[in-house]
Amino acid sequence: MTTAREVLDRCAELDRFTADPPRLERFYLTPEHASANAVTGRWLERAGLRTWQDAAGNQCGRREGVTDGLPALLLGSHIDTVPDAGSFDGMLGVVMAIAVAERLRDAELPFALEVIAFSDEEGSRFGTALLGSQAAAGIWDEAWWDLRDRDGVTLHQAFGRFGLDPRRVGEAARRPEELVGYLEAHIEQGPMLEALGKSLGYVTTIAGARRFRLSVIGEARHAGGTPYSRRRDALVGASEAITAIERLARATGEQGPIATVGRIEVQPGAVNVIPGRADFSLDLRAATDAERDAMWELMRAEIETLCAARQLRFEVTEAHNAPAVPCATWLQEAVQAGIRATGDDAPTGLWSRAGHDAMAIGRTTDIGMLFLRCDDGISHHPDEGVTELDVAQGLDALEAAVLEVAAAVGASR
Amino acid sequence: MTTAREVLDRCAELDRFTADPPRLERFYLTPEHASANAVTGRWLERAGLRTWQDAAGNQCGRREGVTDGLPALLLGSHIDTVPDAGSFDGMLGVVMAIAVAERLRDAELPFALEVIAFSDEEGSRFGTALLGSQAAAGIWDEAWWDLRDRDGVTLHQAFGRFGLDPRRVGEAARRPEELVGYLEAHIEQGPMLEALGKSLGYVTTIAGARRFRLSVIGEARHAGGTPYSRRRDALVGASEAITAIERLARATGEQGPIATVGRIEVQPGAVNVIPGRADFSLDLRAATDAERDAMWELMRAEIETLCAARQLRFEVTEAHNAPAVPCATWLQEAVQAGIRATGDDAPTGLWSRAGHDAMAIGRTTDIGMLFLRCDDGISHHPDEGVTELDVAQGLDALEAAVLEVAAAVGASR
Repeated sequence: MTTAREVLDRCAELDRFTADPPRLERFYLTPEHASANAVTGRWLERAGLRTWQDAAGNQCGRREGVTDGLPALLLGSHIDTVPDAGSFDGMLGVVMAIAVAERLRDAELPFALEVIAFSDEEGSRFGTALLGSQAAAGIWDEAWWDLRDRDGVTLHQAFGRFGLDPRRVGEAARRPEELVGYLEAHIEQGPMLEALGKSLGYVTTIAGARRFRLSVIGEARHAGGTPYSRRRDALVGASEAITAIERLARATGEQGPIATVGRIEVQPGAVNVIPGRADFSLDLRAATDAERDAMWELMRAEIETLCAARQLRFEVTEAHNAPAVPCATWLQEAVQAGIRATGDDAPTGLWSRAGHDAMAIGRTTDIGMLFLRCDDGISHHPDEGVTELDVAQGLDALEAAVLEVAAAVGASR
Repeated sequence: MTTAREVLDRCAELDRFTADPPRLERFYLTPEHASANAVTGRWLERAGLRTWQDAAGNQCGRREGVTDGLPALLLGSHIDTVPDAGSFDGMLGVVMAIAVAERLRDAELPFALEVIAFSDEEGSRFGTALLGSQAAAGIWDEAWWDLRDRDGVTLHQAFGRFGLDPRRVGEAARRPEELVGYLEAHIEQGPMLEALGKSLGYVTTIAGARRFRLSVIGEARHAGGTPYSRRRDALVGASEAITAIERLARATGEQGPIATVGRIEVQPGAVNVIPGRADFSLDLRAATDAERDAMWELMRAEIETLCAARQLRFEVTEAHNAPAVPCATWLQEAVQAGIRATGDDAPTGLWSRAGHDAMAIGRTTDIGMLFLRCDDGISHHPDEGVTELDVAQGLDALEAAVLEVAAAVGASR
């Protein structure tokens, strides 16, 4: 299993593990997640790795280096998805990592080689992203145990139902001295490489997202009997907020912050009742944390003003706050060397607007990322696409990057 | 069971039959509906009526007049609710009808007296209102069988699960010659009577609502990687539409059309995915059908324009279209006489902005309605409230109105 065709076949095979066929939806700690871990484990074994599922549900595999017990170079990405997902966001990086491990099966390496399929990158189920990779980085907030999914199941309960012991989640943590670094291949999820006519790019830094749960609270009343002067319509207020959020971010231009409201729910949610409450999400990203935080203050002030004008209450809960994470220079160089090995003499550097597991694991080790061109920049959608050629180039580049890391680590001994 | 206190106690007793305790939610053809029918049937029997559940799930009771088989005067309202409902919208009218039938148990009447608890007025489950009363009026559209609830259950399936035979729904139909008329008591669901300091009012006409399912369709994409120039965000488009809907209706002033968006759902509905689709409801009412229809054309044109500007597709399905229904003059007079019997010498006439079962049953017989003052105009909300005094006045008025109808029917013989 080392060709691009085989990699694509495996991505398709993972599509079978979904909660909502024919759409792909694989959330953290679900039966689909367990099935995906199981098949990933089998592929890891076939590539010659010793396998285990860690205490946070991440699926892992390891082969030793020239001697046993050396620090490990991690290769990985995630196998959870958004609802109605494409087949490649996350999964491609996991399957490519396995393929590269298999290609290097007999290579003598000055580090152990590990592959990790992170269990929760998207945060689709509990609203907080990167739970799997944060656990691996030794970051865990006890407050997370009370996060609830849409059915009211807590993260703590979900651990138990998945067969994990919440008290042992700390065992998933990897110590810095156990690790050489982390490399991740991922589709770009944007239109840049395609516009440049490039198969591959290396990542310079990953912008951090902040995520909020915003609530506008008014009063539920009968749709017919209540004149406008007596209405405190939470949905109209939320609609003005959503429009304002786009207007403010958009005004900063193409390189400015990006804000998205991806989810909204109204209460009570009947055709003939004025909504008394609207809860919606906000995902906010920018090239720098300062730019992002300034934009949030602007949005918050604007929404407070428009809610006050309608006698609506406005409440905010911050669900996620990740600082921008730069890729380590030496791993950027290794990825660039990998890209050059495919014949691209002037590798393109990009900053990632999307978040990645690398951000979390970057808290405990150096990170580097390889981006692959994707069709029309589409991601988080069933039309997500990569070409066999680009995957082939990506496999060659990732393999070459690992050997570059091996050379660097060997030289530093 | 003929006092206002007892009426209020029975309304509280019906609160127990809910799908979502402690909130009140009782939808058509659910187990809660079956329980409410059962207890209503027992109350009807205790009031001396012969009882049955009709072929559309309406709970009925009948006592004969001076001779058997006379046409019937119907008293009734509905026992289904919106989500997170109050205790009185519908239920109060049913329980008051039973109380009046009990008070008149030994009266010699020139008609049979029937009480009917309609099974579906709100349309909360299938999106189409007045299913119970339309069935009783002999109105049934075969296309309704394919209506689906949120879980994908069709109306046809729901009939079967409730123990009803879809093929026999026509048996619920009441023929005009079987009926003398229909009287309904109901809370006002608006602030008018309270503002006037009145317990009761009579209804002149019921404005017809049109209800639509509106869909804005764009493209789901990754929240981080997709610049604004590449976005076709269905929720931002829907938010502009919702804001425009309020703006256009509100501009017509307090007596103009009333429009409400009570429900919205976005797909795929994840915090980090641009919504590819937003579906939302529109409920539109006005004093006259012409005013209402003109407003809809204005809204539709405005939404089409703003969607086109964002390269979004806009689709409309009309879910409900009820023309305004006037109350019969002679029944308005009977209700006025009933109100005068309580000491109000100048009864107040109101037009109803809310829809009622009377609109549907009005297709097969004359209708009259009695409104009761409610707290702060609140309805479709747990804070719905009526005073014991107003209910006592309402019972007296409804009883007197029935006797007025008896006098009118007797005189016309």
